[in-house]
Amino acid sequence: MKLLEERILKDGQVLGENILKVDSFLTHQVDYQLMKEIGKVFADHFKNAGITKVVTIEASGIAPAIYVAESLGLPMVFAKKAKNITMTEGILTAEVYSFTKQVTSQVSIASKFISQDDKVLIIDDFLANGQAAKGLIEIITQAGAKVAAVGIVVEKSFQDGRELLEKEGVNVVSLARLAAFENGQVVFTQADI
Amino acid sequence: MKLLEERILKDGQVLGENILKVDSFLTHQVDYQLMKEIGKVFADHFKNAGITKVVTIEASGIAPAIYVAESLGLPMVFAKKAKNITMTEGILTAEVYSFTKQVTSQVSIASKFISQDDKVLIIDDFLANGQAAKGLIEIITQAGAKVAAVGIVVEKSFQDGRELLEKEGVNVVSLARLAAFENGQVVFTQADI
Repeated sequence: MKLLEERILKDGQVLGENILKVDSFLTHQVDYQLMKEIGKVFADHFKNAGITKVVTIEASGIAPAIYVAESLGLPMVFAKKAKNITMTEGILTAEVYSFTKQVTSQVSIASKFISQDDKVLIIDDFLANGQAAKGLIEIITQAGAKVAAVGIVVEKSFQDGRELLEKEGVNVVSLARLAAFENGQVVFTQADI
Repeated sequence: MKLLEERILKDGQVLGENILKVDSFLTHQVDYQLMKEIGKVFADHFKNAGITKVVTIEASGIAPAIYVAESLGLPMVFAKKAKNITMTEGILTAEVYSFTKQVTSQVSIASKFISQDDKVLIIDDFLANGQAAKGLIEIITQAGAKVAAVGIVVEKSFQDGRELLEKEGVNVVSLARLAAFENGQVVFTQADI
């Protein structure tokens, strides 16, 4: 997605060897115009895929996911990272290790929101080691539903998330794919859309 | 907001003495159509208030806040509940106690996203004891910016959040105000919009 790549080059900040900070438009401050475009691009790609639900994980996945849901005309569900006293029944869970936050957390979705008739499009802001997506796939599979694909805004292609997911037979569709950081600059490889 | 009150009556679940579960359209599964309407209603109310930025707190505030931001044509910033290794510089923080999750957490916003020229509309999904909003107000005040108002989707008017905020001179605007739960049913009091 050219618009996204341009925005990353303009406003992204490379930190150290493997961190790209996109907190001015995606992960902290959010640009709704870009999110709308992201929603349209994913929806256009998946419009004939029979998707019935968009699933993401809190918190940075929510803004892109809700616009994907809007563009597809579907409900969006965001998985929770912490237990909540109002979540009392029928919870599906998986363990997820976050390399960014350096903690293992339990991710959960109330089972009533995923049925065995669902065909789910997972949306997330970043794909690095694939742990969050793997946890969501685990939950969706527990519910007896199908995962149509994993849609990623920014993929760190130099980490092994895509490989891990593709080995499990999951279709990964990324809007921007970071091949490497060279002299503090992002080098892209061909994106999927 | 009549549409929201009707939705609460239709799909909300009263749990025990003071919990309203709205996880089928707001806090877990999200209905983008309702979020769009919420965005429009807040934007219409605040269109002449000189707002420059919409601020919320992860995670359930993000969906309504991004649609408010879209309707006002402004950026949205969501405060973070946990420290992140990519947040390295100029962070404004406040302590927030969550009665729902029974934990105290540090809430933070990168200072570069709030300037002293900003007039901020805070948006959140729930107002109960007002602790989250109080933390956000603290952060925005630290940045030297002004809080125009706190916009709430669902206010538990039988708890003291509104009183706490109004005592500090903050304008609270809620779309649905829960007066009480009677026999497992929600009783509303007059909403602000």
